[in-house]
Amino acid sequence: MTALLPAVGAEVSLDDLPLREDLRGRSPYGAPQLDVAVRLNTNENPYPPPPELVTDVTEAAHIVAAELHRYPDRDALALRTDLAAYLTSATGVTLGATNVWAANGSNEILQQIMQAFGGPGRTAVGFEPSYSMHPIIAAGTRTEWLPAPRRDDFSVDIRAAAAALREYAPDLTFLTSPNNPTGQSLEPAELAALIDAAPGMVVVDEAYAEFSDRPSAITLLATHGHKLIVSRTMSKAFAFAGGRLGYLAAAPAVVDALQLVRLPYHLSSLTQAAARASLRHADATLATVALLRAERDRVVADLAATGFDVVPSDANFVLFGRFADAPRAWRAFLDRGVLIRDVGIRERLRVTIGTPEENDAFLQIAADVVEQELRT
Amino acid sequence: MTALLPAVGAEVSLDDLPLREDLRGRSPYGAPQLDVAVRLNTNENPYPPPPELVTDVTEAAHIVAAELHRYPDRDALALRTDLAAYLTSATGVTLGATNVWAANGSNEILQQIMQAFGGPGRTAVGFEPSYSMHPIIAAGTRTEWLPAPRRDDFSVDIRAAAAALREYAPDLTFLTSPNNPTGQSLEPAELAALIDAAPGMVVVDEAYAEFSDRPSAITLLATHGHKLIVSRTMSKAFAFAGGRLGYLAAAPAVVDALQLVRLPYHLSSLTQAAARASLRHADATLATVALLRAERDRVVADLAATGFDVVPSDANFVLFGRFADAPRAWRAFLDRGVLIRDVGIRERLRVTIGTPEENDAFLQIAADVVEQELRT
Repeated sequence: MTALLPAVGAEVSLDDLPLREDLRGRSPYGAPQLDVAVRLNTNENPYPPPPELVTDVTEAAHIVAAELHRYPDRDALALRTDLAAYLTSATGVTLGATNVWAANGSNEILQQIMQAFGGPGRTAVGFEPSYSMHPIIAAGTRTEWLPAPRRDDFSVDIRAAAAALREYAPDLTFLTSPNNPTGQSLEPAELAALIDAAPGMVVVDEAYAEFSDRPSAITLLATHGHKLIVSRTMSKAFAFAGGRLGYLAAAPAVVDALQLVRLPYHLSSLTQAAARASLRHADATLATVALLRAERDRVVADLAATGFDVVPSDANFVLFGRFADAPRAWRAFLDRGVLIRDVGIRERLRVTIGTPEENDAFLQIAADVVEQELRT
Repeated sequence: MTALLPAVGAEVSLDDLPLREDLRGRSPYGAPQLDVAVRLNTNENPYPPPPELVTDVTEAAHIVAAELHRYPDRDALALRTDLAAYLTSATGVTLGATNVWAANGSNEILQQIMQAFGGPGRTAVGFEPSYSMHPIIAAGTRTEWLPAPRRDDFSVDIRAAAAALREYAPDLTFLTSPNNPTGQSLEPAELAALIDAAPGMVVVDEAYAEFSDRPSAITLLATHGHKLIVSRTMSKAFAFAGGRLGYLAAAPAVVDALQLVRLPYHLSSLTQAAARASLRHADATLATVALLRAERDRVVADLAATGFDVVPSDANFVLFGRFADAPRAWRAFLDRGVLIRDVGIRERLRVTIGTPEENDAFLQIAADVVEQELRT
């Protein structure tokens, strides 16, 4: 019966509300969450956490649950210490907890960065196509977003990009390595050249760093710490998308700056404990990254052999085409049981690397549809 | 050894960074997190979750942990359905999931509200002293904060307040019932008068609603749904401060508006599952609220009998004084092992209601220090 009752206030429409003008007519961000057998659309790690990780997270939750009536550690110091240790082992750069900050997903990290260093009257530059949340979070913090182009092959023309940064003189620059949704990485020397050219703060979004062989931008912190922030996430390599843990490495003063805008107690005690438990199983989780890299190379080779145009990828996804009609092709994959992603790039679709079986299913469909969907 | 190494970028100071000008010189918000035997400073529920709740949260975490590699339900629909059912039973107003939104603590709820309905060029009014995060979140979203006064006894002069709202014509009005840190509630008729006077959206912050006998502002949604948002938290009554779960009740169109500014996947699958598990034990948790209300009345009576000036409280805390030097009196309590809160109100301190034993310890100290600390 209750379900049939009209919701209270159902007569109020969005148009009746004094919404910010720039939000009118917008749609919420997010890929369709569809119940499909093979989901290769949000760059998740397809391998479930190993049983020993599940046990450890459960035990951590059990301990924390008994203290849920108390606020969490506002500074998440133990977690930041563990994240610093991981980054130190992964990059060879010795980092401490004061170099690290954490939040509910890298989106919240990026939002805090824009709140501290962007905002009204300030600008941010990104090289597009890139992570579509960057301009959305800029809008949410009222930071003016200035898109700069990539080459037609989606690589960054470093000389042109540096010139654009000098011309735009943005308060914030967003670099991505590897870049989502195209997959290419930037070399440290390229990153350094762009950081040198950027007058303001530079965020290197390394959400997919573990899938790449290139050295992390963290190796530049010693020389560029006055303007460099490297953001990371546990969503992908650590198979922790459901746990929501983004983090960053930077000079301690940057972390101090973000503490001026973070909401107090933003990170729950469950999140802190579960992330720490997951980090203890880094070896097992990162072993899946090696599998995914090998599968990525197989998918790239197979797609190319089938006749697709494939963007070289350093991440756990592949941008491929070129389709006569990308939305129609996306639907062709979905109709055959594989959900991939239409990222809004003309003639291209993005597929997340799954398990070998999932990739086989995807590649089979790709072979089936290539003739009818490919641009002629 | 590692601890002795200087952090990377330690030579960079906050003054070297291109921080937003309005953040310069600020300190991060937050009460001191001190390791004291009796902590009565952050309005936590002193009763730990009952064992059956701990077991249920643990089991929920176990189930979710196996799927941590997948993103959470972006719309948190199951949780919102449970929260709507709770509010329906608590207020008698039939609410559905479309009337409810949830986030990481009510601070994130308030931030999303200000992002959608406030921001640069827009204003927000609150009646101070009130929850100190309201102006801080306003600043974080660049919403101009306009403080309006309460009476000297901290009650709201409804006629004067309505006149102030008509004069300021704010885009957002923040009401609090009960008000933190003073403890008084507003009656529905008073709320309705203020909502009628306010031209923009009105947020009634009911973080402490369960500690009050007054009807919730939710009873006004049927008549005022075009401008009313009622925010709540599981931190206090539900003893879930560590789990970070804030929520709101409003017209569905308001929820639609907030989905335009929320970060995608803002609420982890662990948070959603743990909050649902906690809600299943509402009867047990809310039984502690009855104990705390009785204890609150005892503390108020005892403090008054001892000679303190006590503000009548409808919440789980009490504002009392009047001290010759409130910071010195705060230290006197701390030196004797009880951490209370200096909320920045002259001559007053706030104490959270604890267990009977904690309250006894507090009241004993209050009796001990009354002569030397009270204003003469």
